[in-house]
Amino acid sequence: MQDRIVVDWGSSNFRAYRFGPDGTVIDRHQAAAGILSVIDGRFEDTLRREIGPWMAKEGRDICLSGMITSRNGWVETPYLACPATVAGIAQHALVRELADGTRLHFMPGVSALAPSPDVMRGEEMQVFGTVGAADDATIVLPGTHSKWVRVAGGAINGLRTFLTGEVFALLSQHSIVGRLMPKDPAPFDEGAFLAGVDLAFSPASISLLNDIFTARSGALLGAFPVESIASRLSGMLIGHELAAGLALETGTAARLVLIGEPVLVQRYALALAHRGRAAEIGPAEAAVEGFRKLASTGALA
Amino acid sequence: MQDRIVVDWGSSNFRAYRFGPDGTVIDRHQAAAGILSVIDGRFEDTLRREIGPWMAKEGRDICLSGMITSRNGWVETPYLACPATVAGIAQHALVRELADGTRLHFMPGVSALAPSPDVMRGEEMQVFGTVGAADDATIVLPGTHSKWVRVAGGAINGLRTFLTGEVFALLSQHSIVGRLMPKDPAPFDEGAFLAGVDLAFSPASISLLNDIFTARSGALLGAFPVESIASRLSGMLIGHELAAGLALETGTAARLVLIGEPVLVQRYALALAHRGRAAEIGPAEAAVEGFRKLASTGALA
Repeated sequence: MQDRIVVDWGSSNFRAYRFGPDGTVIDRHQAAAGILSVIDGRFEDTLRREIGPWMAKEGRDICLSGMITSRNGWVETPYLACPATVAGIAQHALVRELADGTRLHFMPGVSALAPSPDVMRGEEMQVFGTVGAADDATIVLPGTHSKWVRVAGGAINGLRTFLTGEVFALLSQHSIVGRLMPKDPAPFDEGAFLAGVDLAFSPASISLLNDIFTARSGALLGAFPVESIASRLSGMLIGHELAAGLALETGTAARLVLIGEPVLVQRYALALAHRGRAAEIGPAEAAVEGFRKLASTGALA
Repeated sequence: MQDRIVVDWGSSNFRAYRFGPDGTVIDRHQAAAGILSVIDGRFEDTLRREIGPWMAKEGRDICLSGMITSRNGWVETPYLACPATVAGIAQHALVRELADGTRLHFMPGVSALAPSPDVMRGEEMQVFGTVGAADDATIVLPGTHSKWVRVAGGAINGLRTFLTGEVFALLSQHSIVGRLMPKDPAPFDEGAFLAGVDLAFSPASISLLNDIFTARSGALLGAFPVESIASRLSGMLIGHELAAGLALETGTAARLVLIGEPVLVQRYALALAHRGRAAEIGPAEAAVEGFRKLASTGALA
């Protein structure tokens, strides 16, 4: 097997990896060159600017994953419906050949149709980098759009996205709840955060739409200081996500693995531990490991 | 009893009513002179500009209600804790005398402390205008911050606010869900709206944070056209509010009364009827009737 190049090209970031024949990373490059920064669809120019030297040397085949394969990217690929494996993803790639003969393999995203429609583009590689070929687990990727990904026998067979991080940002920046928060962000208040988590799990919580208002009304009535509103709101939202996600689990012995941005992963782990639920922390470089598996797939030869 | 002036002074609008000795409205005035439009706290100037002639003639006592009594208004009044009656509100008014002897009576808002903290300022007058002195009912005021107000024996004894309208606006204008909506707003799609309502009541709904993402992913996967996203999202949010609000009801024969902006009231009535729940439509001028009761209270003499 020759060297392989994989590009993880998201909305904000461009990350490229060169894997040697034995699967080790022999070179890597990162730039703030996400698809939102690319003007007039000049993706090839951007690609050559970032990893031109690699391409000249040996880049006859390049895998691309992430938002570069979306409607707003270079080549839109269809979603691969669950169950999805690394091999299945590689097989359903769309190939485009550049003038110099370089073949670009655009990976599909993954979709779930039942019990409710859901999609992802890029996160699946982090999941494959976390689980083994025969693993059963639920992988949680906290973030702007948190993903709960169900894996059975090493294949992705279910997916739920929660708008947790985006709703937190919108409420903090634009809503009547955020208007009461101090202009200088207050430090993280663990007690307020966990009180918010507990509220989401309690019978007093009848709806998230009501809970978030209490982050304001409670402060107006002196139940807690305005400095704790942000942490309380964060706890409520994450608590609602966790309560819903955990309720989906069928077996009590199911593995729960958190991967992603360390600060967020720690916050989710804190909330889960507080609710008495054990969770593993996945590898920091889950995406790289997933790309290593993708790069070593025969389908891309 | 002499004539009475009541000013309903909210964030965006200024509405004043002059009641005759028999309780009929003998004059009314409305202007886009809400507290957000008043610069440098010049509330007295604004009041005289809008209803100066009434004040010169007989305005020795003026009742003020709404956001004018909030932290961002003229005089902040404490909240009156439930149970709250019209007489109790009048008794807890804060009185300020102007240089010419005019007495301003700033009404308190109403708060609920249990089972969760909640507040309102102004909406309570619409509630009192809707119910009789011995009524038991749940009054629903749909809006940016929807209120579910529990009335027993004519007194307000419970309150829940849902951020339904504000969350809809934030998601439509600023979120990844809204980004898929056509720039020119699509017409109201009743089928999509009711599908959203049904989703909120169904076991497939595990969390609002997940449901709202499906308004995007369903369109991406071709389950429905992008033109229907807004109506579907509206249905989901209103559905979540209704499911939570209805679950609070203790008796099946409880009266449910909708009051407020007609288009919104109709949309809530449509959703409730679709879910098999009867609801009354309250009076169009509920606030005026509430102010009439307030104006005729002896406590303001």
